[in-house]
Amino acid sequence: MKDKIKQILNQVQDSQISIDEGLQQLEQMYSCDMGYARLDTHRQYRKGFPEAIFCPGKTTDQIVQIAKKLHEVSDQNVLATRAGREVYEAVCREIPSAEFNETSRTIVIRKGVQRSVGNILVVSAGTSDLPVAEEAAVTAEAMGNKVERMYDTGVAGLHRLLSQSERLQQAKVLIVVAGMDGVLPSVVGGLAASPVIAVPTSVGYGANFGGLAPLLTMLNSCSEGIGVVNIDNGFGAGYLASLINQAGI
Amino acid sequence: MKDKIKQILNQVQDSQISIDEGLQQLEQMYSCDMGYARLDTHRQYRKGFPEAIFCPGKTTDQIVQIAKKLHEVSDQNVLATRAGREVYEAVCREIPSAEFNETSRTIVIRKGVQRSVGNILVVSAGTSDLPVAEEAAVTAEAMGNKVERMYDTGVAGLHRLLSQSERLQQAKVLIVVAGMDGVLPSVVGGLAASPVIAVPTSVGYGANFGGLAPLLTMLNSCSEGIGVVNIDNGFGAGYLASLINQAGI
Amino acid sequence: MKDKIKQILNQVQDSQISIDEGLQQLEQMYSCDMGYARLDTHRQYRKGFPEAIFCPGKTTDQIVQIAKKLHEVSDQNVLATRAGREVYEAVCREIPSAEFNETSRTIVIRKGVQRSVGNILVVSAGTSDLPVAEEAAVTAEAMGNKVERMYDTGVAGLHRLLSQSERLQQAKVLIVVAGMDGVLPSVVGGLAASPVIAVPTSVGYGANFGGLAPLLTMLNSCSEGIGVVNIDNGFGAGYLASLINQAGI
Amino acid sequence: MKDKIKQILNQVQDSQISIDEGLQQLEQMYSCDMGYARLDTHRQYRKGFPEAIFCPGKTTDQIVQIAKKLHEVSDQNVLATRAGREVYEAVCREIPSAEFNETSRTIVIRKGVQRSVGNILVVSAGTSDLPVAEEAAVTAEAMGNKVERMYDTGVAGLHRLLSQSERLQQAKVLIVVAGMDGVLPSVVGGLAASPVIAVPTSVGYGANFGGLAPLLTMLNSCSEGIGVVNIDNGFGAGYLASLINQAGI
Amino acid sequence: MKDKIKQILNQVQDSQISIDEGLQQLEQMYSCDMGYARLDTHRQYRKGFPEAIFCPGKTTDQIVQIAKKLHEVSDQNVLATRAGREVYEAVCREIPSAEFNETSRTIVIRKGVQRSVGNILVVSAGTSDLPVAEEAAVTAEAMGNKVERMYDTGVAGLHRLLSQSERLQQAKVLIVVAGMDGVLPSVVGGLAASPVIAVPTSVGYGANFGGLAPLLTMLNSCSEGIGVVNIDNGFGAGYLASLINQAGI
Amino acid sequence: MKDKIKQILNQVQDSQISIDEGLQQLEQMYSCDMGYARLDTHRQYRKGFPEAIFCPGKTTDQIVQIAKKLHEVSDQNVLATRAGREVYEAVCREIPSAEFNETSRTIVIRKGVQRSVGNILVVSAGTSDLPVAEEAAVTAEAMGNKVERMYDTGVAGLHRLLSQSERLQQAKVLIVVAGMDGVLPSVVGGLAASPVIAVPTSVGYGANFGGLAPLLTMLNSCSEGIGVVNIDNGFGAGYLASLINQAGI
Amino acid sequence: MKDKIKQILNQVQDSQISIDEGLQQLEQMYSCDMGYARLDTHRQYRKGFPEAIFCPGKTTDQIVQIAKKLHEVSDQNVLATRAGREVYEAVCREIPSAEFNETSRTIVIRKGVQRSVGNILVVSAGTSDLPVAEEAAVTAEAMGNKVERMYDTGVAGLHRLLSQSERLQQAKVLIVVAGMDGVLPSVVGGLAASPVIAVPTSVGYGANFGGLAPLLTMLNSCSEGIGVVNIDNGFGAGYLASLINQAGI
Amino acid sequence: MKDKIKQILNQVQDSQISIDEGLQQLEQMYSCDMGYARLDTHRQYRKGFPEAIFCPGKTTDQIVQIAKKLHEVSDQNVLATRAGREVYEAVCREIPSAEFNETSRTIVIRKGVQRSVGNILVVSAGTSDLPVAEEAAVTAEAMGNKVERMYDTGVAGLHRLLSQSERLQQAKVLIVVAGMDGVLPSVVGGLAASPVIAVPTSVGYGANFGGLAPLLTMLNSCSEGIGVVNIDNGFGAGYLASLINQAGI
Repeated sequence: MKDKIKQILNQVQDSQISIDEGLQQLEQMYSCDMGYARLDTHRQYRKGFPEAIFCPGKTTDQIVQIAKKLHEVSDQNVLATRAGREVYEAVCREIPSAEFNETSRTIVIRKGVQRSVGNILVVSAGTSDLPVAEEAAVTAEAMGNKVERMYDTGVAGLHRLLSQSERLQQAKVLIVVAGMDGVLPSVVGGLAASPVIAVPTSVGYGANFGGLAPLLTMLNSCSEGIGVVNIDNGFGAGYLASLINQAGI
Repeated sequence: MKDKIKQILNQVQDSQISIDEGLQQLEQMYSCDMGYARLDTHRQYRKGFPEAIFCPGKTTDQIVQIAKKLHEVSDQNVLATRAGREVYEAVCREIPSAEFNETSRTIVIRKGVQRSVGNILVVSAGTSDLPVAEEAAVTAEAMGNKVERMYDTGVAGLHRLLSQSERLQQAKVLIVVAGMDGVLPSVVGGLAASPVIAVPTSVGYGANFGGLAPLLTMLNSCSEGIGVVNIDNGFGAGYLASLINQAGI
Repeated sequence: MKDKIKQILNQVQDSQISIDEGLQQLEQMYSCDMGYARLDTHRQYRKGFPEAIFCPGKTTDQIVQIAKKLHEVSDQNVLATRAGREVYEAVCREIPSAEFNETSRTIVIRKGVQRSVGNILVVSAGTSDLPVAEEAAVTAEAMGNKVERMYDTGVAGLHRLLSQSERLQQAKVLIVVAGMDGVLPSVVGGLAASPVIAVPTSVGYGANFGGLAPLLTMLNSCSEGIGVVNIDNGFGAGYLASLINQAGI
Repeated sequence: MKDKIKQILNQVQDSQISIDEGLQQLEQMYSCDMGYARLDTHRQYRKGFPEAIFCPGKTTDQIVQIAKKLHEVSDQNVLATRAGREVYEAVCREIPSAEFNETSRTIVIRKGVQRSVGNILVVSAGTSDLPVAEEAAVTAEAMGNKVERMYDTGVAGLHRLLSQSERLQQAKVLIVVAGMDGVLPSVVGGLAASPVIAVPTSVGYGANFGGLAPLLTMLNSCSEGIGVVNIDNGFGAGYLASLINQAGI
Repeated sequence: MKDKIKQILNQVQDSQISIDEGLQQLEQMYSCDMGYARLDTHRQYRKGFPEAIFCPGKTTDQIVQIAKKLHEVSDQNVLATRAGREVYEAVCREIPSAEFNETSRTIVIRKGVQRSVGNILVVSAGTSDLPVAEEAAVTAEAMGNKVERMYDTGVAGLHRLLSQSERLQQAKVLIVVAGMDGVLPSVVGGLAASPVIAVPTSVGYGANFGGLAPLLTMLNSCSEGIGVVNIDNGFGAGYLASLINQAGI
Repeated sequence: MKDKIKQILNQVQDSQISIDEGLQQLEQMYSCDMGYARLDTHRQYRKGFPEAIFCPGKTTDQIVQIAKKLHEVSDQNVLATRAGREVYEAVCREIPSAEFNETSRTIVIRKGVQRSVGNILVVSAGTSDLPVAEEAAVTAEAMGNKVERMYDTGVAGLHRLLSQSERLQQAKVLIVVAGMDGVLPSVVGGLAASPVIAVPTSVGYGANFGGLAPLLTMLNSCSEGIGVVNIDNGFGAGYLASLINQAGI
Repeated sequence: MKDKIKQILNQVQDSQISIDEGLQQLEQMYSCDMGYARLDTHRQYRKGFPEAIFCPGKTTDQIVQIAKKLHEVSDQNVLATRAGREVYEAVCREIPSAEFNETSRTIVIRKGVQRSVGNILVVSAGTSDLPVAEEAAVTAEAMGNKVERMYDTGVAGLHRLLSQSERLQQAKVLIVVAGMDGVLPSVVGGLAASPVIAVPTSVGYGANFGGLAPLLTMLNSCSEGIGVVNIDNGFGAGYLASLINQAGI
Repeated sequence: MKDKIKQILNQVQDSQISIDEGLQQLEQMYSCDMGYARLDTHRQYRKGFPEAIFCPGKTTDQIVQIAKKLHEVSDQNVLATRAGREVYEAVCREIPSAEFNETSRTIVIRKGVQRSVGNILVVSAGTSDLPVAEEAAVTAEAMGNKVERMYDTGVAGLHRLLSQSERLQQAKVLIVVAGMDGVLPSVVGGLAASPVIAVPTSVGYGANFGGLAPLLTMLNSCSEGIGVVNIDNGFGAGYLASLINQAGI
């Protein structure tokens, strides 16, 4: 953050920008009032990654404007989650480099060269859990982490998981995504030595109650070293995994 | 049942018992009004096992009287569940052959020679689940089944279960008892080919909500061939296992 | 399973297939990675029936590919549940012998001659419970069981059930399907001697809470010998009934 | 009510009581402020029966004082519910005619000759439901109704109920009390033609959730003509039954 | 019922109908198997009113056939609830005398002259509760009761209710319908002397939870003489009111 | 209210209106029966503001008629909430001065000159909470209060809130609107000295359960001086704020 | 607050206290670390009343020490809630002027002369609600407000409330306390013009669910101007009422 | 693990132990059957820390035997949680070096020299949360981590937290413990850059529902980088923090 401030002050000193412009740029390092939103532009300095755009409840036009502003003031990737294709297309008209992931419904706008460190493994139980698992994977990748995937390895056919137990043990952080009974994180947590982030999904029916069943399973896990995020919160899991993965760096 | 009726009629014909006594005995084959309870004495003919005594909410004296009556009219074992030691001692004063299982808090009053058929395996996740697991095992044994036990094999140390997978495959019926996250039946159901009766227990804390968490886990299991009974209902699991085990006999 | 392995080895020995083909076939006996899914092809050897296809959350194309693969590697019937008509038509274009059941929304692809053993009786409470009851019946039939149906026999008109009590007593396994108050399994369990699989449905309104009411009723049943499956889980009930029905065979 | 007012006015006119005494008596016909309680003394004129005393949360001394006051101002029976034996004994020291029912924990203080009209039948499912069933029966009797009892007739042994179906059809109002699965009111409602008041009890364990299970069962009943009261609310059921029973009188 | 049987026997004796026809007619007095439904035709003899048709979950064609059959075998009004206009029109093509109530979405097919006895008062809290209130009113009218309505009298403007307290006291049975906070039955129960049937509706938002809030309010009412039916169950309330209203007749 | 009555009596005395007209006008000061609704026209005298129109569950035509009647009999602003644009347009055809707020979906029909007193501050956590926050603001404005807005100040970027803590301390009443975790009222309540009205919104997903999560957060707040209204109830918050703001006036 | 700072600086200037003592006193104006607690001594300057002591979960010794410290640093009354008699006696040994209210289990330690402004009316539904109502009243009194009480005025006997409607209209703030069905705030809110703070209590049984029923009733109230606090939170209600009552002062 | 195996083999080779002893020691490296428990002795090799002893549901004697066995086979600290003082004293008689922490009710049996790496900060909201916070701290310390504490910093007095924001930013992992509204993790997560483990506690009353309220708050947090563990699960939080803290080592 200090670098950025110095840079602004230098520009003022050299009269490259006016004092008013300098003031505005300094203010925008903290927050940026757009009327319908007050962007927390300081977040990239505080948390290491700019504010992500959670699309539901915002108009397409608001999303586009926020994306542009974040892309402008940040020197890192910008991420938008739960975006429809039509939102992506609107963003793309303004920022052609924006990329869309259909499965996870995420938009990523890249900036500069990407580092790719550590080893995050995303494990999922069933085919229907893919959108959440991909949201986690894309988020972690956008934040500069190396991510591997191991999908459709539910415990109804346990040998699918056991045959890959070496990969479980090599990961530095594990994200385990499961709906239905939410059993997978307990089993993975029993096999692996690294922190496990458990993500319940709303996949299921009947007494699943929109993901309540796997959520409770994961919170009550008798395996150690498991932290739980909200139902379907792939973004939150990817974010937390990134913080853990980059903690020692 | 026909045998019993014939026997009564024969006794009447031979004047071993009076017509009034015969009438009373015939009536008692259906139900027996004890004022505070109307025993379903017909149940042994209909379901193959007499009504069991669920002790909570009954006075010790009522339990003793019901046990005596059932023992008198039935030609099979009598079972009382959730009994305290003081209840057992009161029963014992009247029926000295009564046996008590401290862990499962069950009383069994045996009658005649016991058959012991089939192969029911009771699997439990943790040490705290023992009372429920034992209630299931004692119930199934009292109903004339061969029962094996495999205890403390939770998935936090999966090798404990996998090392005994052969026993899982040999059982004709499996009863799987688990509290906390209730994960064990899903894993066992993924390994074994026989019907699995899943029993959630109220063991746990916090978001366990008195056994709700493992109950939901088991109802939502992605493994096939699992039927669920009420939380802590070891009796119900043992009963159902007995019906399945003896179905082909 | 040994037969299958021998057959492959023989084909390799006789050079009917190459070593690489043999290796691939042996691997496919355990699992089969299709990218979006990792089929548990070993399940037919382990559980006696191949993995069934739960359609929600999968694209039509994925379902068709999975159905083709399972049909290819399995020597038994293939079952897909909760399938729309358009899914069936897509499957049919690839596998013309596929059959569709409109009420239960199931697809069955038959293979070879069917055995039809035992006696499973599916009882349902109301007309609106038919889709779930039929899913149970079709599943059990697809797994090689003889299935009878007794529909619309709710306890509001108890004589409809009592007049058929003989059929209740003759079944080896009973599946009892009910929404609303979920009372039927308790009544059937009081009359019949065989294991009862209770299936709550989401039929109802108000304090039914999407099937929670009948689910709780069934879990708390005071009749013995009842195992419960998830709300609307006709497939699970049919599967469990099949395991019980064929347990002694 | 007019009679009472006339009587007071006459006493004033005849100078049997002073004007101040007359005023106080007139005021006490509406309510009576005792500091910790404001008795609704008008209730007997409005609803036909004086305010009953719900004991929990009141001190023994408060209960005694309220009982004395109600007994004084009312010309009907006074009823106190959920009273311990020690409360009864304290009341008895002041009003020796008070009667105690140990099972239902009710105190009744009778006044004058009792009418006993109509035909209310109280049916209960199990022995543990007796306290609630008796609270209903005692309440209805205290309000001047003829009450019959039919106890321990749960559906696990349906013949116990069916053998007495005539009594079900002859009652003018039925109160049906059940815990566990709460199935009995649905079955009774299918057999009887009169209004059924369903009372769930908190008897049960596990997924009974303190009576929630039978409450939901009864609210969702597919039999017609059923009204439900709160869990364990025997008093409320007896009161409602009395209003219905005496509606045409 | 005896009259009907005699009539059939007379027709057989007089050879107006054949023995087979007589047999079929006798059987149809108990139940009538239509494949997808097993009509409880005996209900009119047992409960005093034929089975009503709950339309959701049935096809239009099934509803029409059931309505025709019930109209044919019953000598009373036939009622169908929760019917759309298109269902009504289909019924109307077959039975032109069918009547439709748009607000309550009920179809009534009348038969012969109607009695109209007693005095049922339907009170509702808000305009949005009208569909449920009307379902109750139409049901009670179809069953031969005199019904009055008092709508939009919520307690936020208590004088609207108090100004009509005389009507509250004159009714023999009260049906009180309310969503939101469900307060109205408690207030009405405090003012009126007759039985109150409380009907919670799903009208509301937020912490209303689909009618759970008013349901709990009504079950916990501190006014006496209140029975509760399921959320939105106007039919059930009208039916119960009819049984109470005609109890003394 | 007395002024209005005097005015009517004067008009009668002066024969400006007939006695019948006077009677009707006096009656309409209490309530006004429109068939489908019984308007509480007395509310403006009792609560200081006329009954507001909650649109869901009413037909467009009913809303228009109610709006016209309230506008006619009231000398204050009329407010309709949760109105769609098509409702507004229908109202506008009859009352052209009606104003629509698209975000909050409110219609205001102004009357005479507006006072604008005190200082109500509406604070909201995120952009998606705007509709509820605006409903609160518009309601308070329509009731004659001065309202300020401070939007998108969630605690994930706490400096956005802290930088405006002076405004928090100057407000006489605070309305704090938040979905997701509902944390904002606790933080604001810790900083400000005035009463805080907390409004949970249904914004969120997963374990948010339609606003239950923020509702519980707010009810359990460890900051003092917080009152909570229903989920999404911006209207109720604005109304309560107005009563508090004008309490001392 | 400035007065206090000036006073300290003056004492330093006059050498009445040392610089170290002055520093410590200034720091203690913000917070005071007692090891097991970090007192928010700044609260009295920020919120107008010092931090209150919530006794559960604290040892008696901790409570005594905290009370002494708050009494020392504050120039206002100190309040401790949910205190047992033995806690009071321990406090009393250190601060003899401490007062105890048995019903509400509150301790008040007064300081200087009390103002007593405005007009807060505490209304409660039943005798069992007294502890919560008194906690509210005592809290408001301790904060310098004039408080009136109107107890046991539940709607089952509505005339008790209506006869005192004038008092309802004269209060500047109303606190309405109710358990069971929680109906009272809706009725009071319909009659009174001032802000209503609704306090649900855990008084009740069965489907009351520990106060959930009245909580939901109050949140869904169709009367305007109601803010709700947590179940049994008399303290919170008294605090909020004080802020409102003193808002204009 | 290989070192341990080599050591055993060497001892066998050197005849220091017999082949039977060697076999037993090798077996005990995987699990150890004690009848009532099957210790997962392999866990220390797999997860880096031996199985901890959760005391509830185990007899004192069982706990002592398990502690002795774990202490014997492990070369690391042994931890027992939720232990009463009497349990500690029994352990102490066998293993005098055992240490007890009264607040957190934990027993630690140390082995060899302790490493103490990284920087875990445990933050708690209130004094009543101390037992859970201490369980987390003691667990992390027992696993070889450097732990700091920052207690009683709830957001009702936000300056207590803000004044220590530097410590928040320096920690490598944060454990944030809160009951009541559970707001603290959201605020800390907004300020700090490191992973936050949120621990809801069951401290609270009313609509806290045993910790459900703070649990939901934390799962729905709008701050990023938060993982949640079960209510009151200090052990789980300390364990997860240790895995994260030592991930890069």
